[in-house]
Parts: sequence; structure tokens; C-alpha cells
Amino acid sequence: MVRFRLDISYDGTDFSGWAEQPGRRTVAGTVAAALAQVFSMPEPPRLVVAGRTDAGVHATGQVAHVDLGAGAEPQELGRRLTGVLPADVVIRAVGVVGDDFDARFSAQARHYRYLVTDGPPDPLTRRSVLAWPRPLDADLMDAAAKGLVGEHDFAAYCKRREGATTQRRLTRLDVTRSASLVAASGQAFCHNQVRSMVGALLAVGDGRRPVDWPAEVLAGGVRDSAVTVAPAHGLTLIGVDY
Amino acid sequence: MVRFRLDISYDGTDFSGWAEQPGRRTVAGTVAAALAQVFSMPEPPRLVVAGRTDAGVHATGQVAHVDLGAGAEPQELGRRLTGVLPADVVIRAVGVVGDDFDARFSAQARHYRYLVTDGPPDPLTRRSVLAWPRPLDADLMDAAAKGLVGEHDFAAYCKRREGATTQRRLTRLDVTRSASLVAASGQAFCHNQVRSMVGALLAVGDGRRPVDWPAEVLAGGVRDSAVTVAPAHGLTLIGVDY
Repeated sequence: MVRFRLDISYDGTDFSGWAEQPGRRTVAGTVAAALAQVFSMPEPPRLVVAGRTDAGVHATGQVAHVDLGAGAEPQELGRRLTGVLPADVVIRAVGVVGDDFDARFSAQARHYRYLVTDGPPDPLTRRSVLAWPRPLDADLMDAAAKGLVGEHDFAAYCKRREGATTQRRLTRLDVTRSASLVAASGQAFCHNQVRSMVGALLAVGDGRRPVDWPAEVLAGGVRDSAVTVAPAHGLTLIGVDY
Repeated sequence: MVRFRLDISYDGTDFSGWAEQPGRRTVAGTVAAALAQVFSMPEPPRLVVAGRTDAGVHATGQVAHVDLGAGAEPQELGRRLTGVLPADVVIRAVGVVGDDFDARFSAQARHYRYLVTDGPPDPLTRRSVLAWPRPLDADLMDAAAKGLVGEHDFAAYCKRREGATTQRRLTRLDVTRSASLVAASGQAFCHNQVRSMVGALLAVGDGRRPVDWPAEVLAGGVRDSAVTVAPAHGLTLIGVDY
């Protein structure tokens, strides 16, 4: 068996997320089917991924690994995958890695960006930028974001999953006006965490909530129905560190 | 009659260009139909536009004018148009202008950008960035571009139209690596001119032609079949000066 690392970009608009689901068009299912086609495999191989993105979420820096029986020259494999994949998934790089590399468990940090504009919506970027209908105060949002950085139980910002911990270390949560973006980095994120944090920051940004509200919700330790989950299409997984 | 100026953005992917054509989905037809709906007009009004973009070409800074019998508060008109327009056309601003303003004939300059990448294609921008399969030398392309700037007969770079002059003054043609873009500005462009110039620059960029070839073609004064018209989807009209 040879282990390959795949660096993958995708436009999440027309996918039901990363994870395979019967009868749905998913990124994992599409890439696995392409691998099966290239290697004439009877069954699609199993992919292990750094970030299981939700429906509508994009990636410019997703990483997965896959074990294949047949060896292949990585560049040639990349070219052949590109030949069979649809235009909304791109294999950016293929490499051979050791058995000790695990796309999920070896990841030291994951980086997301969430794009928002409070100006006129740009139809060219409408699939990846949230158009916010009210003016946003990015400085206030950034100040509020600082109250979430650090190691906390993010239960208030996580979709509950049976038995899963919601303890996470958030290393970066910056809001900058220039790029109209929220940048979030952490070792790992629980389900819906980034989008829930963005939802809380947007409420600060347009004046509905005070600057220390997101940190108060965090301290409360339970999901607050006032925290909305920001729409998926503004979110992009931009990189994973190993 | 009141004359309105409309500042318009669109994703040209799913339009057969700006100009109305029977049975085709066009930007002009879509905006005119929206105006007719908002004002309950029996016939859609006629729009005059700064740049009649081709099928697949986008705009972030298109300008049109329209004469309407009924007055309307510009901001309110913008909101109502937004309410009936599809997501791939956005009215960025509406203003009342004098009768001496003509979106086409008052335009002093038009600005286009053409986005190209020779890196891995980004699926999120594939509708507006041309993915070039070979490495491009942007410095060579920029040097070649300088041979086209100025007032010339651009017959070699224009799709022939009966009786139409191809004399144009190109004020700017820059190629920069940082943004992977060609920026072109001029008082006006003839049909296919920007995409033909980009096609010539790409041939310089990937080494198929020498740096002075685009200027030689220009001096030849006739269309050269070796000049390919770059694909529409990389081109965006980004602004018009009045």
C-alpha cells in the first residue's frame, strides 16, 4: 500500500458537504469515484480528511490522504485525476507520504476564512462572500473576537454531537475591514463553531449586541438561541498545518 | 421624462452578453424587464450602455442610462430593482442625471481587467479567471503590452464591423504578476480588442512568440490568424469614467 496526500480545492456550492452520504453529491464521494476510475478499482477508496466541511462550505486548502494498492507517479496521478474531476473540484497537489501521516490526526492547525461584505454585493463572488444588508463595525467585531481566543469549552458555539468534546483551543480570530473577512485558526473546530462565532460577531458588528456579548455567551457554556449560525457559503477552509 | 444612471455589476456566465437578442437571456433584456415590472410599463424601456460586453464577459463597473416617464426616488428604485432581479445582476447605484449625460457617448474612458492564473486553478474563481496550462512570464507580457499603448488603428485586434472605425487610443495596458491580471484602459475599444490583445500577450508570456510580436501584428494592420481571442470568462469591465 502507498499513502498519498491530496491537496484539494473546491467550490462547495453544489456539494452536500465533504462527507459521503448515500444519494448525495459530496466532495469525498466525487474524489473517491475519480480515484476508482483512474485506477480501475472495483470499489472507491476511503479518504481521510483534515476538515469535514458542511454543505456549501468551500476549500482552497483542504488536505486528505488515501491508501492505494497500486503505486503511481504523483504528478501523473494529479493530471489523471484532473482529467476526470468536474470543474468545481481541483487537485492542487499530490504527494507520497509515510504511514505516520494522517490528514486528520496529524493536523496541528486548521485555518478558515469567512468573507462578508456590507457594500453592494458583487455577483462574481456571491458564491463565497456573504452580503450583509446593514453596515458592520469591523473594529467592534475584532474586539469581540478577542474575547473568544484561547482554550475554552465552546459548547455555546457548537452543534451538539453525542459524546464529542467541545473543548477547543482557538489561536486566532481576527476581523479586518480591508478584506471584509473573519480569519479563524485553531487546532480543531467543533461542528458549526466557526459559523456560530461569525454569527455572534455579526450581531456585534451591526450594533444589535454589545462587544462583550460573544465572550459572555462563551462563558455561559450552553448554546444560546440568539447566536445564529452564519450561512455556509461565506466560509472557506484555507489551510491545514502539519 | 427623467433620465436615470444605473451602475451595474453582473456575472456574465449565464448571459448571452449585454445586448438584447430575441430568445436569448441578456443583461440588457433582464434589466429592462425588471424596470418594466417595477414601473408596470407595457413595454420594457431602452437602455443605453457604456460597454456592450460579449457573452460570458462580466462587469463590476458597467454604466447604463434609461429615460423613464415616471419619476422615482433613486434609492427606492434601486431597492425595488434588486427585489426583482436575479442574483447574477446587481444594481450598485441609481442616480438621476441630466439629459446631457449619455452612458455611451459621455464616457471618457473604459477600464477592463483580464484575470489569468498559471497556478493551480481555483474552483471558486473559475468563472472569472482564465486558467492557463503553461507558465507565463508576466514581465515579458508587460513589455509586449507597452508596444500597443497609444493611438493606433487596431484593425489587427478587432473583429471587423461594416463601416466601423478601428482607430482607438489605448491609454493603459499593464500586466502584473501579483494579481495575475492584464489591465486595459482606453477611451473606447473595438469589438474583441481587449481579448485579442490578451491572446497576443499570452503567446508572448508562455514563450511561443517574441516580445515585439504584438506590436508587429498591430503595425501589420490586418487581423492575424495567429492572434487568438482569449476566452470571454477572464474579462471584466471594471469601470467607466465620465
